[in-house]
Amino acid sequence: MIKVGILGYGNIGRGVELALSKASDMEIAGVFTRRSPDLVKTINSKVYSIEDAVKMKDNIDVMILCSGSAKDLPQQGPVFASMFNTVDSYDNHKKIPEYYEAMDKAAREGEKIAVISVGWDPGLFSLHRLLGECVLPEGNTYTFWGPGVSQGHSDALRRIDGVQDAIQYTVPVSSTVDRIRKGENPPLETRDRHKRICYVVARPDADKDALVREIKSMPDYFADYISDVFFVSAEELARDHHEMPHGGFVIRSSVTGDKNRQLMEFSLNLKSNPEFTSSVLVAYARAAYRLNKENMTGAKTAFDIGLGYLSRKPAHVLRRELL
Amino acid sequence: MIKVGILGYGNIGRGVELALSKASDMEIAGVFTRRSPDLVKTINSKVYSIEDAVKMKDNIDVMILCSGSAKDLPQQGPVFASMFNTVDSYDNHKKIPEYYEAMDKAAREGEKIAVISVGWDPGLFSLHRLLGECVLPEGNTYTFWGPGVSQGHSDALRRIDGVQDAIQYTVPVSSTVDRIRKGENPPLETRDRHKRICYVVARPDADKDALVREIKSMPDYFADYISDVFFVSAEELARDHHEMPHGGFVIRSSVTGDKNRQLMEFSLNLKSNPEFTSSVLVAYARAAYRLNKENMTGAKTAFDIGLGYLSRKPAHVLRRELL
Repeated sequence: MIKVGILGYGNIGRGVELALSKASDMEIAGVFTRRSPDLVKTINSKVYSIEDAVKMKDNIDVMILCSGSAKDLPQQGPVFASMFNTVDSYDNHKKIPEYYEAMDKAAREGEKIAVISVGWDPGLFSLHRLLGECVLPEGNTYTFWGPGVSQGHSDALRRIDGVQDAIQYTVPVSSTVDRIRKGENPPLETRDRHKRICYVVARPDADKDALVREIKSMPDYFADYISDVFFVSAEELARDHHEMPHGGFVIRSSVTGDKNRQLMEFSLNLKSNPEFTSSVLVAYARAAYRLNKENMTGAKTAFDIGLGYLSRKPAHVLRRELL
Repeated sequence: MIKVGILGYGNIGRGVELALSKASDMEIAGVFTRRSPDLVKTINSKVYSIEDAVKMKDNIDVMILCSGSAKDLPQQGPVFASMFNTVDSYDNHKKIPEYYEAMDKAAREGEKIAVISVGWDPGLFSLHRLLGECVLPEGNTYTFWGPGVSQGHSDALRRIDGVQDAIQYTVPVSSTVDRIRKGENPPLETRDRHKRICYVVARPDADKDALVREIKSMPDYFADYISDVFFVSAEELARDHHEMPHGGFVIRSSVTGDKNRQLMEFSLNLKSNPEFTSSVLVAYARAAYRLNKENMTGAKTAFDIGLGYLSRKPAHVLRRELL
């Protein structure tokens, strides 16, 4: 049994706990938290203080880092990677090279494996952007996200004066997607790709027309998009918008030979974004363990790891059953 | 430059020649044929007799084996794998374990890499069957093929007495696909998955009603399916059915946590089946070369190879641009 620790217990940590219950070759060594362990209610796992992790070092094969990418992982990641095989879904695309270097150094020093940025984007979507350009070198790659809840944009709405609560859905523009699936390669502005749909609970005294204007003109977040704003009650928001669906697709469109159109597409339709991300993390935790068993060390991304490492089945069984 | 040989010059060999012209880090060392080299007309490559390949051993980094899976590869494959790094699209699913063993032995003895069975199925579809069950261990995987031309079924039609020529298209049953994409996991018979559409040129003296009955009742090929038979003239067949489109999709349908439906799908929509297969072969030829440069030897499948090996770009560029 591969003994797995869970660092952090938000939506992802809880999803990892669920996903580990489906992995018959893995067991949970414990949940580790910065909060008081008494206050963390898990499904079925023991909770320890984050300070206890180092003492349990020899009884944990892989630590899955479920902390936030913005502030926590850049600090915690290298500290843990020097002591444990780790897996994370670090998703600050622009800072991945920097994060990779820090994790690689720490993991090499500790003779561990650190698998970074393996959720679905970055992660599975990245794999498909790579596969697309390798197999069909002349062509265009399109990534669409949604329909799904964007935490960043929901937070941006909530910071507006006069907004009590809000949820923002990112939605691909279907007419654009249809054109690409037909093999067209249209020039695309930001607003041609995605729309933004906002469900907003206004404070009682708020000027709703002014709120709509403020939202639609917010730079970076909404101004470049077609954005729809709907006002709902706090009850409606809680009732109709408490789930965390997401998804999207990566399309590679190309032409080979004598004008032969070739399309590859990978798509996800997820009822629970955090539970899916967690499922990817758990599969790569198995890979981290196996790579380290083969004496490999350092940081790895999805690009570096053959998919066979994600499976509990031996290679000859995979060839027989799945090839 | 990676110097690549092409063994065999049918639809796949020609597709490989086209695909190599798009790979700026590769050049064609020659096409090798069992026919008289004078009789083989390539786009732009020198043609040699297959016997000359061994003399050019040191000037060829990878040999792409474009011969047939039924008779040629089981014989040629191990012979070439002992002398060259090789890539092939061996597609006899049931005999893959046996072929793998033979290629592995030959490649190890020759200290070469033999990448086997990397077209789209087996190949990219196999990768997605594996990814699906690793990420979402509880669930169902569905592979659909088409719409596209099946050579095996077209040949079966042509062997019927009274058939002058024929083309058979395999088509997924769209109502079934719709149900699966909605997250249902229906029990499926063979006839629920695919239908078979036959365009047949009958001999002038043939009894068409008898032909239809014979086709629809042919065991293995048609009897288990809903099969439609359309009679066309030789001119219509040549005009409307000379292309080789294909495609299909692999769907993984699962539930995580508290009844959260999760769907992953990989799909291909190909105007030219052989040119796409060839594009996959060329990408894996780069991987074969690089793996052998790292002193690895033996047979490999798509399951064993990190996708980063398929790219001409260094790992730090991939992390920056595509992760």
